[in-house]
Amino acid sequence: MLGSTHGTFTTGLRARVVACGEAPPVVVHGVTAAPGDQDVSGRPLYAPVPDLDRFFRPESVAVVGASDTEGRPNTGITRQLLAWAERVGARIHPVHPTRTTVFGIDCVRSVGALTEPVDLAVLLVADPLPVIEELAAAKVRFAVAFASGFAETGEAGAAAQERLAAAVRQSGLRLLGPNTNLNAFERFREDLEGPAVALITQSGHQGRPVFTLQELGVRLSHWAPTGNEADLETSDFISYFAGRPEVGAIACYVEGLKDGRSFLLAADRAARHGVPVVAVKVGRTETGARTAASHTGKLTGADQVVDAAMRQYGVIRVDGLDQLQDTATLLARARRPVADGVVVYSISGGTGAHFADLATAAGLELPTLPQDKQDELHQWIPEYLSVANPVDNGGHPVGDWRGRKIIDAILADPSVGVLICPITGPFPPMSDRLAQDLADAAEATDKLVCVVWGSPVGTEEAYRTTLLGSSRLATFRTFSNCIGAVKAYLDHHRFTSGYRSPFDEAPRTPSPSLRKAQALMRPGRRLSEHAAKQLLRAYGIRVPREQLVTSAAAAVRAAGLVGYPVVMKASGAQLAHKTELGLVKVGLTSASQVRDAYRELTDIARFESIDLDGILVCQMVGRGVEMVVGVTRDELFGPTVTVGLGGVLVEVLGDTAVRVPPFGEQEARSMLADLRGRALLDGVRGAPPADVDALVEVVLRVQRMALELDDDLAELDINPLMVLPRGQGAVALDALAVCR
Amino acid sequence: MLGSTHGTFTTGLRARVVACGEAPPVVVHGVTAAPGDQDVSGRPLYAPVPDLDRFFRPESVAVVGASDTEGRPNTGITRQLLAWAERVGARIHPVHPTRTTVFGIDCVRSVGALTEPVDLAVLLVADPLPVIEELAAAKVRFAVAFASGFAETGEAGAAAQERLAAAVRQSGLRLLGPNTNLNAFERFREDLEGPAVALITQSGHQGRPVFTLQELGVRLSHWAPTGNEADLETSDFISYFAGRPEVGAIACYVEGLKDGRSFLLAADRAARHGVPVVAVKVGRTETGARTAASHTGKLTGADQVVDAAMRQYGVIRVDGLDQLQDTATLLARARRPVADGVVVYSISGGTGAHFADLATAAGLELPTLPQDKQDELHQWIPEYLSVANPVDNGGHPVGDWRGRKIIDAILADPSVGVLICPITGPFPPMSDRLAQDLADAAEATDKLVCVVWGSPVGTEEAYRTTLLGSSRLATFRTFSNCIGAVKAYLDHHRFTSGYRSPFDEAPRTPSPSLRKAQALMRPGRRLSEHAAKQLLRAYGIRVPREQLVTSAAAAVRAAGLVGYPVVMKASGAQLAHKTELGLVKVGLTSASQVRDAYRELTDIARFESIDLDGILVCQMVGRGVEMVVGVTRDELFGPTVTVGLGGVLVEVLGDTAVRVPPFGEQEARSMLADLRGRALLDGVRGAPPADVDALVEVVLRVQRMALELDDDLAELDINPLMVLPRGQGAVALDALAVCR
Repeated sequence: MLGSTHGTFTTGLRARVVACGEAPPVVVHGVTAAPGDQDVSGRPLYAPVPDLDRFFRPESVAVVGASDTEGRPNTGITRQLLAWAERVGARIHPVHPTRTTVFGIDCVRSVGALTEPVDLAVLLVADPLPVIEELAAAKVRFAVAFASGFAETGEAGAAAQERLAAAVRQSGLRLLGPNTNLNAFERFREDLEGPAVALITQSGHQGRPVFTLQELGVRLSHWAPTGNEADLETSDFISYFAGRPEVGAIACYVEGLKDGRSFLLAADRAARHGVPVVAVKVGRTETGARTAASHTGKLTGADQVVDAAMRQYGVIRVDGLDQLQDTATLLARARRPVADGVVVYSISGGTGAHFADLATAAGLELPTLPQDKQDELHQWIPEYLSVANPVDNGGHPVGDWRGRKIIDAILADPSVGVLICPITGPFPPMSDRLAQDLADAAEATDKLVCVVWGSPVGTEEAYRTTLLGSSRLATFRTFSNCIGAVKAYLDHHRFTSGYRSPFDEAPRTPSPSLRKAQALMRPGRRLSEHAAKQLLRAYGIRVPREQLVTSAAAAVRAAGLVGYPVVMKASGAQLAHKTELGLVKVGLTSASQVRDAYRELTDIARFESIDLDGILVCQMVGRGVEMVVGVTRDELFGPTVTVGLGGVLVEVLGDTAVRVPPFGEQEARSMLADLRGRALLDGVRGAPPADVDALVEVVLRVQRMALELDDDLAELDINPLMVLPRGQGAVALDALAVCR
Repeated sequence: MLGSTHGTFTTGLRARVVACGEAPPVVVHGVTAAPGDQDVSGRPLYAPVPDLDRFFRPESVAVVGASDTEGRPNTGITRQLLAWAERVGARIHPVHPTRTTVFGIDCVRSVGALTEPVDLAVLLVADPLPVIEELAAAKVRFAVAFASGFAETGEAGAAAQERLAAAVRQSGLRLLGPNTNLNAFERFREDLEGPAVALITQSGHQGRPVFTLQELGVRLSHWAPTGNEADLETSDFISYFAGRPEVGAIACYVEGLKDGRSFLLAADRAARHGVPVVAVKVGRTETGARTAASHTGKLTGADQVVDAAMRQYGVIRVDGLDQLQDTATLLARARRPVADGVVVYSISGGTGAHFADLATAAGLELPTLPQDKQDELHQWIPEYLSVANPVDNGGHPVGDWRGRKIIDAILADPSVGVLICPITGPFPPMSDRLAQDLADAAEATDKLVCVVWGSPVGTEEAYRTTLLGSSRLATFRTFSNCIGAVKAYLDHHRFTSGYRSPFDEAPRTPSPSLRKAQALMRPGRRLSEHAAKQLLRAYGIRVPREQLVTSAAAAVRAAGLVGYPVVMKASGAQLAHKTELGLVKVGLTSASQVRDAYRELTDIARFESIDLDGILVCQMVGRGVEMVVGVTRDELFGPTVTVGLGGVLVEVLGDTAVRVPPFGEQEARSMLADLRGRALLDGVRGAPPADVDALVEVVLRVQRMALELDDDLAELDINPLMVLPRGQGAVALDALAVCR
């Protein structure tokens, strides 16, 4: 059992935030974001947190379209609502144009006819739109719309949904749905204690397994089935749940997002509060994205971008509903870890070896226990068994206190934050006693104790009663889910303990660069290399000394100014693949070479019918690591910044990292760590280490540009950015910019 | 229920092999391998299949060290054996130096004193070695040794195990263990029909979950707990099980292998028979390898090599015991697929979208159902729901025959080989009826029907009775295990239907190249670049025209013969990193440049104190794709052949593929497909496609060399191999060879 007051398991960060109150403005790190605050791109830095208390706990509920005619779907729903109202003590008001009673309760013709204020209207009508105005007039606070046939069906449905959303915006009420159901008002067990899992799903059926965890003793506090999200969306519920004291973790099943920024602000709020968000997000593949769109009509976003955005805000993405259940449960219940070390305790050397292998491969740290701890353990475990970690006891002692002693001794080691006992095969009475010892030890420690019950049967008493009966133990059925959840747990606490919200440091006002940049923009067109480089210069990104010339004589003069040796390139707005076309000449060391090169380049351009705005005569830059830095637009998140290895590598391997602005220096550095070929930057084959600081600076300046120009910049691609040896900077050798 | 005779579900291949008999020699593809046959490296091409019938079904069993004294471990084991003997009708003979009876049965002092022949001796003594001779004299066929303290404990134990193994080799009996147990003689359910799972584990505890599948209705035929494998090893059991008619799949838990070739020959036998082998293999990480070694004292091998070897022979490697259970069960039971198409049938659009996303990401093919099939389905499914695949029925019809009709209609489509119905949340009565319809449909079709029961509870009647009660359905608990198993199922049948054993085509006699190569070898030394290239030439691998010279004048003459432009390099046995040291000069176009280069190279070598055997004057080769081809030795498998992208890429990304000889051309091509940067070979940025045929030819020639030189060649590294544009071949520009 967890501590009886919520405060005992909260993190310092969380406690602090809770202490300073739930009401806006949110104050963290001394920076205040308030309603209306925007970053330089015009995106909000603050999202209001909807007060959904009365939505989840309405006292008075109108059921529009209530029925008691057997066989009609609305009758089942009405019956379910009545049973729920009975349980929680709410009042149900049937509303129907022709009926006088429903299930013996007086029925009114419209919500306006009700005398008491209505918290929630459940709309069982095929078209909820005409009802909205009536609800607004009656000052109903919340509505749930069941009807389907909206955005999930295509363009006409999307238009109908937009009309519904517009009506809701005007009305002042908050709407859940359409295309949703009554999952929020199911039977929640009231007998379970400790931090709970709050559930948000865009599909009722997909939420069922998490909800069903109640039957295994896991406390569920809420279920928000968001459906098509014409108004209330996943982000609203994340924000709301993040501030609820009973919520230990938020579990989400997401098919698509309504708005990228709202989601990030909600995830940010959860991160500030130290509340973990675990999410399944559909859209790994085209097939998944297409199918999801036909289900709730939402955009799935480019998956690499969604993935990055989630990681930036500490959202734990998992693939399966089983992982969602296991990870959310563990994160809701477990206290903050006191150490990152994981010890595997097993009754079989094979089990220990197998588990340690998978755990290490997943990135968990299995410290070797210190010699004095090993000596202590060998008091109870035969000398020939290894107790270094994994601790192999060769069979848990059942006859006396030794088993518990072993577990306590492991947990007492300061390097240990997590003890995991995989019980591959039940072997009563040994496994019964082991389960009991683990449950008892878990009660007595602040550290995390995990058990994997490997039997495929799952009806064993030790599993059903002893293990699932303890909310202090985290019980799993597979090695992989245990390892994944423990990894997420340690990562989550590492993330939140060092969390600084990127929104606090997001630029709010344009830099002086913007005016210079705007002068260079050509709406709807692609800039020439020369213009694109001027854009970079405007944001303080180094480009080679260069001049654009239109005669051979000017080229020679330019070369003299730029300094030999020089590079010469054709420059034109429509030019791509210059190298393949022979439109780049490098290492020119004399006036005659420059003259020849000028002639040759203009000849090729003529021959290939390419419009040039001139020839660039550029300083030749020393050797370094070729990188790519760029900006692309995501349908959900707006501009995103990418970094990758340059040259042919980026094309062949697609070795790029992406981030959604705003992000800080640390995040920019983490992009480099994401690259498979990152070792190139450290210097290989005798090459000196590259100037990573300069590269990071370029990434941050590009981000600033992307935010300031926002919609005006469709695409930017610095390729290559030559990152010179440490201390020498980075130079954009070529750039492509497309204006909108 | 599967067909009542085994033959109805076997593949054509399998039926053919079984028909031609189990006894050696094995005849497949018209090539005969017989006892004693070896490939050119001296490794066997044939492994005898042990006859283990009497091991698994002994009629007479001696228990050496039997006891009936309460509290002694041997007493428990004796009791277990007596119960087993009672069940299967075997005779138990206690053997003990001092006891006269054990559990009321007459006890003899030694096995030699027994009057009837003994099939199996169970050795419960601390040191089995002294007993072996006595067993041999008594012509005992099999023994099981429980004692631990052998190779798993370190060097002294390994030596003791080697003495035991030597005694067993001389004795003529076959030994299981030491460090094993009685898992082979547990209670196997006799009431289950259809193809069974045979289990091989190097840890008793780790085998328990698969064995326990019996409780869920999965038939288990055997369990071989191999322990330290002083004699009988995993490979012996794979070979034996592959020929047993009741075995549908072999499930293995492997910590290490005793011998690489034995394992490959066993896997080859299983592949020829079309019997799937599913294996957990510990050793993904150093930690795992180390821990496994301390458990059963075996080598884990380099994981990339183990992985490749398994794939070459169709062994399905999985990470978790849960995957082992699910995959082996599916593969044992399911008939050969008639099509590769997978259709997802769901009662929720969300479930369909989520499942389709994960399935597609894993590489399953979800064909769009043809329009007429969709029209047919829309007879029973509302028009607004998508039935293209996933088929979303919006809630399975429970009141009538429509649900079954839908399932049958999907199964009738010729593109469909597999129907998967993920039931995320149980929703009786709908899910009950759905489960029943699926079970009924599965009985009536040859196609594979899978169900995912997503409820975490798992005690529901529909799951326990309807789904698990049908051996024709494959029932899973998670999306990922279902997807993994279905992928393995389709891959397995694709693999075996096109399987040609590499052993049939392995070279048995040396090529004429070997004599030339042997003359170049310098035992214990590293060859100079020039000598290494001669080695390559001996095996018909192209190298640049080149001459080794020791004077500037000779260099100029050589350049004239080789043809300008030339490359000049320092050559010496101890030379590495030539480029970094400035010991390579490229693009020399005149005699004076050659003279200057000669002077410079020899100066640098003097300055750096490098011993040269001369300067290489080499033909300059055109541009192509730089690759690496090499040979390294694996502790388990001997020489292995690797291919990778050359240059700095191979170092930074480690983008290499490896194979264990012998392998054919198709496998060599598949190595290229394994490379992340394979697109480079297709030609990027306007480069022409590379001569992949020439590259494959080099790989095969290097393999031949590796096999023929075998132990004499410690390492070979062609880096770079310049693969020229298609039709122009591949040239080894540099090579390193180390002799043993």
